[in-house]
Amino acid sequence: MAKKGITVGIVGGTGYTGVELLRLLVQHPQCELRAITSRKEAGMGVAELFPNLRGRIGLKFSDPAKAELAACDLVFFATPNGVAMEQARALLNAGVRIIDVAADFRIKDVALWEQWYGVKHACPELVAEAVYGLPEIHRERIREARLVANPGCYPTAVQLGFLPLVEAGIVDIDRLIADAKSGVSGAGRKAEVHTLLAEASDNFKAYGVTGHRHLPEITQGLSAIAGRAIGLVFVPHLTPMIRGIHATLYARLTSKTDLQALYESRFAQETFVDVMPAGSHPDTRSVRGANSCRIAVHQPRGGDTVVVLSVIDNLVKGASGQAIQNMNIMFGFHESTGLEQLPLLP
Amino acid sequence: MAKKGITVGIVGGTGYTGVELLRLLVQHPQCELRAITSRKEAGMGVAELFPNLRGRIGLKFSDPAKAELAACDLVFFATPNGVAMEQARALLNAGVRIIDVAADFRIKDVALWEQWYGVKHACPELVAEAVYGLPEIHRERIREARLVANPGCYPTAVQLGFLPLVEAGIVDIDRLIADAKSGVSGAGRKAEVHTLLAEASDNFKAYGVTGHRHLPEITQGLSAIAGRAIGLVFVPHLTPMIRGIHATLYARLTSKTDLQALYESRFAQETFVDVMPAGSHPDTRSVRGANSCRIAVHQPRGGDTVVVLSVIDNLVKGASGQAIQNMNIMFGFHESTGLEQLPLLP
Amino acid sequence: MAKKGITVGIVGGTGYTGVELLRLLVQHPQCELRAITSRKEAGMGVAELFPNLRGRIGLKFSDPAKAELAACDLVFFATPNGVAMEQARALLNAGVRIIDVAADFRIKDVALWEQWYGVKHACPELVAEAVYGLPEIHRERIREARLVANPGCYPTAVQLGFLPLVEAGIVDIDRLIADAKSGVSGAGRKAEVHTLLAEASDNFKAYGVTGHRHLPEITQGLSAIAGRAIGLVFVPHLTPMIRGIHATLYARLTSKTDLQALYESRFAQETFVDVMPAGSHPDTRSVRGANSCRIAVHQPRGGDTVVVLSVIDNLVKGASGQAIQNMNIMFGFHESTGLEQLPLLP
Amino acid sequence: MAKKGITVGIVGGTGYTGVELLRLLVQHPQCELRAITSRKEAGMGVAELFPNLRGRIGLKFSDPAKAELAACDLVFFATPNGVAMEQARALLNAGVRIIDVAADFRIKDVALWEQWYGVKHACPELVAEAVYGLPEIHRERIREARLVANPGCYPTAVQLGFLPLVEAGIVDIDRLIADAKSGVSGAGRKAEVHTLLAEASDNFKAYGVTGHRHLPEITQGLSAIAGRAIGLVFVPHLTPMIRGIHATLYARLTSKTDLQALYESRFAQETFVDVMPAGSHPDTRSVRGANSCRIAVHQPRGGDTVVVLSVIDNLVKGASGQAIQNMNIMFGFHESTGLEQLPLLP
Repeated sequence: MAKKGITVGIVGGTGYTGVELLRLLVQHPQCELRAITSRKEAGMGVAELFPNLRGRIGLKFSDPAKAELAACDLVFFATPNGVAMEQARALLNAGVRIIDVAADFRIKDVALWEQWYGVKHACPELVAEAVYGLPEIHRERIREARLVANPGCYPTAVQLGFLPLVEAGIVDIDRLIADAKSGVSGAGRKAEVHTLLAEASDNFKAYGVTGHRHLPEITQGLSAIAGRAIGLVFVPHLTPMIRGIHATLYARLTSKTDLQALYESRFAQETFVDVMPAGSHPDTRSVRGANSCRIAVHQPRGGDTVVVLSVIDNLVKGASGQAIQNMNIMFGFHESTGLEQLPLLP
Repeated sequence: MAKKGITVGIVGGTGYTGVELLRLLVQHPQCELRAITSRKEAGMGVAELFPNLRGRIGLKFSDPAKAELAACDLVFFATPNGVAMEQARALLNAGVRIIDVAADFRIKDVALWEQWYGVKHACPELVAEAVYGLPEIHRERIREARLVANPGCYPTAVQLGFLPLVEAGIVDIDRLIADAKSGVSGAGRKAEVHTLLAEASDNFKAYGVTGHRHLPEITQGLSAIAGRAIGLVFVPHLTPMIRGIHATLYARLTSKTDLQALYESRFAQETFVDVMPAGSHPDTRSVRGANSCRIAVHQPRGGDTVVVLSVIDNLVKGASGQAIQNMNIMFGFHESTGLEQLPLLP
Repeated sequence: MAKKGITVGIVGGTGYTGVELLRLLVQHPQCELRAITSRKEAGMGVAELFPNLRGRIGLKFSDPAKAELAACDLVFFATPNGVAMEQARALLNAGVRIIDVAADFRIKDVALWEQWYGVKHACPELVAEAVYGLPEIHRERIREARLVANPGCYPTAVQLGFLPLVEAGIVDIDRLIADAKSGVSGAGRKAEVHTLLAEASDNFKAYGVTGHRHLPEITQGLSAIAGRAIGLVFVPHLTPMIRGIHATLYARLTSKTDLQALYESRFAQETFVDVMPAGSHPDTRSVRGANSCRIAVHQPRGGDTVVVLSVIDNLVKGASGQAIQNMNIMFGFHESTGLEQLPLLP
Repeated sequence: MAKKGITVGIVGGTGYTGVELLRLLVQHPQCELRAITSRKEAGMGVAELFPNLRGRIGLKFSDPAKAELAACDLVFFATPNGVAMEQARALLNAGVRIIDVAADFRIKDVALWEQWYGVKHACPELVAEAVYGLPEIHRERIREARLVANPGCYPTAVQLGFLPLVEAGIVDIDRLIADAKSGVSGAGRKAEVHTLLAEASDNFKAYGVTGHRHLPEITQGLSAIAGRAIGLVFVPHLTPMIRGIHATLYARLTSKTDLQALYESRFAQETFVDVMPAGSHPDTRSVRGANSCRIAVHQPRGGDTVVVLSVIDNLVKGASGQAIQNMNIMFGFHESTGLEQLPLLP
C-alpha cells in the first residue's frame, strides 16, 4: 500500500532543475516540501525569485547549514556537479534517501568520472551503491535504492531511443551516431555570454564535438545493455529555444525486423514513453512541460540505416520530472502521481 | 452543493482557444467532454491534430451536423466570430447553456457591433440577455447566465488593470491610454504571412492604431463602471513570442490615493488577480499557461501619471481559462477547479 | 575585360529569394534592374511589399505578360518550381541568359525529377544544357552557360561539406549521413500553419525523413564526383530561427589523412568557402546575410568517423547570393562584386 | 573638399557597439582602422571573438596602455560608462577628435549626471564643450566638434519621434508619454541572467518604470527644443528579439495641424529619417542593420491624442551607425558614406 505522504528537501533550488522540481512538488499530493536551501539566496522567498510560484509556495530559501534536511524522508540535489558527493554520506547515515539530479553518481568507473568532471570524487564508495535512475531500465532496483543517480538530459533521450535496437541486437553497435539538439535551458540558469538571447537566438551551432560529459554516461548505459562496449559518436547542438531535446539517432541494421512493432512492444507498459505511429515526426513542443519521451522510428527508403527520432523536455523527463518519477517508484506511489500535466501547445 | 459533473461540447475546436479548452477540460475533474466539432477535420482524432493530447483524449472531431450538442449541459463556441450567433438560439431552447469564446455577444450596442465586425447580427435579441463573462466584475450575473460572452484577450488585461482606478473615480477618464503588446497566438491558428516565424520573429510592430475591435469592447466595459462614456486610445502591438499580453496603461491622477492599497484591496478576494508588491514589473512568462492576471501599479517619480502593468496569458485568462472559470461559476463548482496549473518557467 | 554593365529582370519576386535578390542587386554596381514581375502584385511598388527597400528602389511589380524580359541580358526565376521550365525556351531564343533559383533544371534524370516533383517536365531538352550552378565545382562551365540551375539550399551546404572527402576517395560513400537543420525562411514566404511563429517557435522537429526533394539533387552531385552512385541518408529538421542552415555530416573514414589540411587546400582559392581552424564550431549567425559557407572538420576522439559542420545562410549562399555569384561568373565580373556585405552579429 | 582618408581607433571593442562599429568601419572607404583596445582580450584576433569578421579584418585587440591612439585622427569609445571621461582630456590634447558612444558627455548638468550614473564625473569641464551627436538637430555644431557625445538608443528613437511636435509647439509638453520596447542587445554583451535566452525569450516585461538613465537625456533634449522644461513619462520594455527599438509616443494636441505634412516637411532633407505614408505601422525589422529611423504619425479616430511610431536598430541609428554618421559629418565625408547597407528582410 502506498505510504501516506513524505517530507522532502531540496538542496540548491535556484536553478532550472530546482524551479521545475518546485513546480512539480507543489502539485504533488503526497509530498510535503520542508526545506529548500541556497547559500546565496538564504532568506529570500522562493516566489520572489520564481514569480510563477507566487501564491502557491510560502517557503523561503534556507541556509544549507541550518536546514533540517536530516529530518526529511527524501532529499533532492539540484546542485552543480560536485555538491551531492560531499553531503550524501551524512544524509544516508541519517536515514534519508537521496536523488541526485546532478552527475556525481552516474558513472560507475570513478577514474573515468574524475577524468571527465575534472575533480576528485569525494565518496567513491557510494558510486557502486547508487542506482542509475532510468526507470524504463532499472525500475526494480530504483524501488529499493537509497541513492538514485538521476540521468542527464541527453542520456535520457538517446538511451531510450536506442534501447530497443540494442536490446534486440539488430544494429552495428560499434558505430552508433547520436545527433542531438537541445534548447538553451540545458545550459542552466547561469550568467554566461554564449546563452544570452542576443547570442543564441536566431542562431544554431554544434558544440563539444570533441567530447561531452554525456558521452561516457550514454556509452556506459548502452554498453551494459549490449553486454560489451559500444561505439558512439555524439554531437550535441544548441538550438534557439527554451526547452526540449531532439535526438536524431542513426544505426546500421544487421538483421531485418518490424521496427515499429519492436518499439511498440518494448514500451507498451511504459507510461512515459510514447511510440508514435509509423511515419511520424515528433516535435519537441509536444512534450513541453510534460514527463514524456516521444519516439518515432524510420527506415528511410528501405535502406539498412535506421533513424530514430526521440524527443523530451530536458527539464522534465530529462531532469526534474524523471526525478519525481523515481521518487514515486522509491516510495511506492503510483508512478504518474503529480506528473499528469499536459504539454502546453502552442 | 456542487453539482456532481456535467457534460460538455465544443463547437470548432481546431484553433488555439480550442486546444487550450481541451487541455483544461481533460484535467477538470467534473466535466465529461462529449463532442468536439469541426467541419473540416471531422473524423480525425483530436490527438492527431494536437499531439500534446496523445494518450489523454480518445475523441475524434465530429461533423457539426451530427454532433449531439443539444444533449450537453454546456457548449463552448471556440469558433470564428459569427458562428455562435447562428446556433445559440436552438441550443438555448434545448436547455443548453453557452459560453461563446468569440465576440458575437460581447457588445450590447448591436449597431456598433455590426459596424466593427462587418456583418449583420443573426440574433440581436440574445445580445441583451448575454452576460459579459469577466468574473471580477460580473460574477453574480454569470452564476445564473444561460449565455456568457467570454471577454477578448486585450479587454481582459486592460479592464482589470484600469478597474480600481475607474471604480475609485480618481483618474481623468477622458484620456486613458492602453499600450498593449501581444504574442502571436492572439492572431489564431490561421495560415497567414504576417505571423510566420520568418516575418514576426526578431521583429516588433504596432498594428490597428486606427481602430481595433477590442476598442469598443473595452470602452463599453469601462464606461459602465464609470457611469459615463470614457475616452481611450488603444494601441496594440505584435511581439515575437507565442503567448502573453502585456498591457501598459496610463492615466492622469485627479486625486491622491495610496494606489498600492487601492489595488490590493480591490482584488483581495480574487483568486486569479495577483497584485504584485510595490515597484514590481510582472513578466508575461510568470502567467504562461495559467489563469492569472498579475498587476503592478506605479506612479513614476511621484508625478500625476499612474502607470499600470497588467499581464495575462492571452489563451488562458484571456480566453479558454476564463471560459473554464465562467463554467465553474455557472455550475456551482469551486471557481478554481481545474485551473490550478502552475505557469511554466523557464 | 569585364563588361560595363548588364540589364536584369526577375520573374516572381514576391518571395524570400526575390527580396534577397533585390537587396543584393540594388547594391551591385554593374546591374540595372529593369523589371520584376508578379501576377498577383502587379502595380504595387516593390518597397510597399518589402519596406526594407524603401528609398532604394522605385520599381513596381509588373504584369508578367507585359514585362519586357526579352530585352534583358539576364533573367532570374525566383518562382515556385515549374514556372521557369515554361518560359525558358522563349527567353533563351531571344538571347537572354537565365538563372533559375528554383528546381526545374537541377536534376539531369528527367524521369527522376518528374517523380520527385510530381509534374511532367515542360522542356526536357533544356535540362541537358543547363549547368548546375555550384561555382566551387562547375565554375568553368558556368562562365559560358546560357541556363544555370541554381542549387538548392541543403544541397549547397551538404555538397560543399562532403566535397573534399568524396573527391579524395577516403570515406565509405555507400553510407553517408547528412543531418541538416534549417531556419524557417527555407519554407518560403507562404501562408502555412506549420511555419507560424506560434507553431514553429520554441519547437524543433525533423521532417521528410522518408524522402525530401533535395535528396536526389545531393546524390546526383556527390555521385558525379565519386564516379559512381553514392548512398546517403538525409534528415532535414526545422529549427526556430529565420535564416541559416547547419549541416552535420557523418562518414566512415577508409584511409588516414590530415583532414584539416585536406579541407584547407581544397578551398584555398574559394572566396566564399571558409575552412575554420581545427576544433571550431561555426555558428549559423556568423554567415547571416553573407554569401559564405563556413566549414569545420572533426574526427571525434580519433575514431574512424569524420564529422563535418557546414553552415550557410539559406537565402544567400543557399539561394540568391549564389545566384549573384553565378551571374558575376557568367558576365565576367569579379566574382565577389556586390557580395561583400558582412554578416550581422548579433 | 573631403579629406582623403582618416585613421581611426576604438577603445573597448568587445561589446555589441564595438562589433557593430567594426562591421561598419571595415566597409567604410575612407577609414583606416589602426587599433582596437581591450584589456581583457589583448592579443586575441578580433575575428576570433567575432567570427562574422573572419577574412575581413586582420587586427588583434591591443593593450590599452600600448595602443597608439594619440596618433589617430579619431577615437571611438565603445566602453562602459565612465571610461571615456578618464581618457578624453589626454587624447584631445594630442589633437585627436573623439566620439563617445557611451554616456559620459551626454548630460550637461553634471550634478544630474552624477546622480543618475552614481559616480563623480572625472572631467566636468569637457561636458560643456561636448556636442550632443544627434545630427538631425545638431549637425552644424557636430561639424566642428572635437568631442561628440553619441546619443543613447532610446533617446534617439524618442527625440526624433517627438521632434516635429515639440518644435511646432502643438502638443501639451507637460505630459508626454514614451512607451518604448527594446531588443535585448540593448543590454549589451554582458553575462547576466535576465537576458539569457531561457529567461528573455517567449517573455515580455517592463523595467525601470521608476526611473531609467535615458529619461534625463531625453528630457534635456526635448526641453532645449521647447525652450522650457518638458514633462515625460518614459516606460522601457524588454522584448524577445535581438535588435530593434519601437517607441510608441503619445501627446495631447493643443492645436490642429496636418501632422503628416508636418513630419514629411521636417525630415525632407534627412537621409536617415524616413516618414512613412499615412496609416503605416513601421516594423523594427525594416531597419535591421541599417542607419535608419522610420516614423509614422497617427491621430486615432480623429481625437486629440497624437500617436507616433518610431523605429530604429538600437545598434545602428541608436549607437554605432549614428557614430559613423557623426564621423562623416566631422570629417567632411558624404554623410551616408559607409552607411548604405540595406536592412536584412526576413
